[in-house]
Amino acid sequence: MPGSNSLYLAPIVKRSRQASDQGLVMSREAWERANGEIRPNQIHTNVERIIMEDEMDVKKILAACDHTLLRQEAGWEDIRELIDEAIEFGTASVCIPPAYVRPAAEYAGGRMRICTVIGFPNGNMTTATKVFETKDAIENGADEIDMVINIGRLKSGDGDYVLDEIRQAKEACGEHVLKVIIEACLLTESEKILACGIVTESGAEFIKTSTGFSTGGATFEDVELMAKHVGPGVRIKAAGGIATLEDAERFMELGASRLGTSRIVKLCKK
Amino acid sequence: MPGSNSLYLAPIVKRSRQASDQGLVMSREAWERANGEIRPNQIHTNVERIIMEDEMDVKKILAACDHTLLRQEAGWEDIRELIDEAIEFGTASVCIPPAYVRPAAEYAGGRMRICTVIGFPNGNMTTATKVFETKDAIENGADEIDMVINIGRLKSGDGDYVLDEIRQAKEACGEHVLKVIIEACLLTESEKILACGIVTESGAEFIKTSTGFSTGGATFEDVELMAKHVGPGVRIKAAGGIATLEDAERFMELGASRLGTSRIVKLCKK
Repeated sequence: MPGSNSLYLAPIVKRSRQASDQGLVMSREAWERANGEIRPNQIHTNVERIIMEDEMDVKKILAACDHTLLRQEAGWEDIRELIDEAIEFGTASVCIPPAYVRPAAEYAGGRMRICTVIGFPNGNMTTATKVFETKDAIENGADEIDMVINIGRLKSGDGDYVLDEIRQAKEACGEHVLKVIIEACLLTESEKILACGIVTESGAEFIKTSTGFSTGGATFEDVELMAKHVGPGVRIKAAGGIATLEDAERFMELGASRLGTSRIVKLCKK
Repeated sequence: MPGSNSLYLAPIVKRSRQASDQGLVMSREAWERANGEIRPNQIHTNVERIIMEDEMDVKKILAACDHTLLRQEAGWEDIRELIDEAIEFGTASVCIPPAYVRPAAEYAGGRMRICTVIGFPNGNMTTATKVFETKDAIENGADEIDMVINIGRLKSGDGDYVLDEIRQAKEACGEHVLKVIIEACLLTESEKILACGIVTESGAEFIKTSTGFSTGGATFEDVELMAKHVGPGVRIKAAGGIATLEDAERFMELGASRLGTSRIVKLCKK
């Protein structure tokens, strides 16, 4: 975990301002103007408490992140750097292409969970290939599996096909976590609701908004809709385009317990 | 094949104008101005010959097209329509997602070749999955296989990995045609040249420019480069963004013997 300076980010500033507005504390800038540079033992107790709380918030956000790198042109050096960052910042996992799972699992050596993607990103592979790819990924050391549904079949109203495919993938996963990507940007509202029902019925642990490779990423509206329509056993992963800590916080407030993003760690690194 | 009217398209107009400029024939419009509406038996012999030649050109272009529909949201009805169009217009094949190969092969019943895509579009699946997916596609009735290379490995200079993967895919293909997609828009010039060498060495029948799902499609420059750098046994498929018959003609003049496109048939349907 980096020092608290690197965590002086949007939500902290926002919250410190709120506290300041309420007359609870002076802003850091106001304090420095009045008192000169802050030394640790000079920090106002309330400021200190708020910084501590916000550090906890950032830690909580980082702990929900699947630190993600799925670009086609990523090489092993990029993946290794991703794993190093994930370990340093305490993310939930690294989410990487299947071709890198084996070296990643060996390199991480149990210090970081390995998540990978199946039938990704178009989802229109055969069920047999998705099942094979899932087993292959787990054999190579994957801890978590993010699989794309057959979007065309869902849109054609063939929910049975989609459900059967997810069930077969879940069977191949065994105890490993399965997240089901519905690519919400390509679905109508009623198709999204149908997908929530199918994922709930399938036994998968998560529903996930997006691949990040289609026409749109996670939206607040989609996460709200999912929170309303999935069963109590299904958690939500928001992914694609999550760029700020404020957005991350908002997605979590709306019900997402995982976030697929690379930018949150990058923000914390600055 | 539709009637000749539907073939009054860019290359024909262009060529008729050239002939007219050379004083060989009058344009159709000039003829009509001078003689009233053309009736079949009034058509100037040279005009007739040129129309016949251009019909042959369009037929030749259509015969080089892999009539393509790979969108995630495509349903079976869309695929069936694609196959009907491909049969009507005499394309080389239909290029469709793996999940639809079995019903497509059954529906086509030998009237149209079935091409599908492997490790598509990102290419960063494991070799084992690409080999499984290839065998699965052939068992389901695929005649031709378009596989995406591991772009990250190529860009990291790991040509041996890329070559070995293509060779394993070719082995899984047996006598079936293998086209190797290098996703040229993500490669530097030297990486493209390296890819040409690898594909030549691999025993694959084709090198293919693009998936159509990345930052760019086929370019004239890439097809020229490929024609210069692949061995004599390797044919070229240009794919992604080919929108006019003039473009199609130009790609073929530059050395492409296959075109991945849906728009050429759509143009001819109008």
